[in-house]
Amino acid sequence: MQKIEENEIFVDCPVASVQKIVRGKWSMVILSFLRNQTLRFGELSRKMPMVTQANLTKELRMLESHGLIHREVYPQVPPKVEYSLTEMGSKFIPVLDALEKFAYTYELEN
Amino acid sequence: MQKIEENEIFVDCPVASVQKIVRGKWSMVILSFLRNQTLRFGELSRKMPMVTQANLTKELRMLESHGLIHREVYPQVPPKVEYSLTEMGSKFIPVLDALEKFAYTYELEN
Repeated sequence: MQKIEENEIFVDCPVASVQKIVRGKWSMVILSFLRNQTLRFGELSRKMPMVTQANLTKELRMLESHGLIHREVYPQVPPKVEYSLTEMGSKFIPVLDALEKFAYTYELEN
Repeated sequence: MQKIEENEIFVDCPVASVQKIVRGKWSMVILSFLRNQTLRFGELSRKMPMVTQANLTKELRMLESHGLIHREVYPQVPPKVEYSLTEMGSKFIPVLDALEKFAYTYELEN
């Protein structure tokens, strides 16, 4: 897994170190879609119509480099590529749950 | 509070709507610092040395426009400006707690 550069960690703010991991514009949405299912690139892309395939690829690679998602390539023609949460990725689920709860509260009051 | 454009909400992903609110590169770090204290701009800026004052101002304005933080201006010379979480902002604290917990787990395993 990619090591976080020491100077990027604020001494008194653990959130800062994890912010870097999920800073991608759509990282948390991707993690949320993969929460309890394995999806192919095309399936993910269809769930996120306003995200270009180039950006989706970039964010998937970033999440993979941080060890939150696993990319499985099946040696067949055409190639099949599937994405799923790693064990570390599944430890992010409580954050997604809290975010979802906040989202409902926010939506109710706006 | 600023309304979220309908077309930006993925029908089956509440996380996407809240992602837009905290998408700023340092939004969650700012919310984390304001978690249980009121801070002046300068105090926030010193806690985030690698963030330019222009970017910090931009992110504070965005969080304010989404109703998560309150900006209090004291009519004095020089002007004093303080930032704190709003009631809605404090409803984001469980997300920060979950993120912090994940950050410690992540740091241990990396």
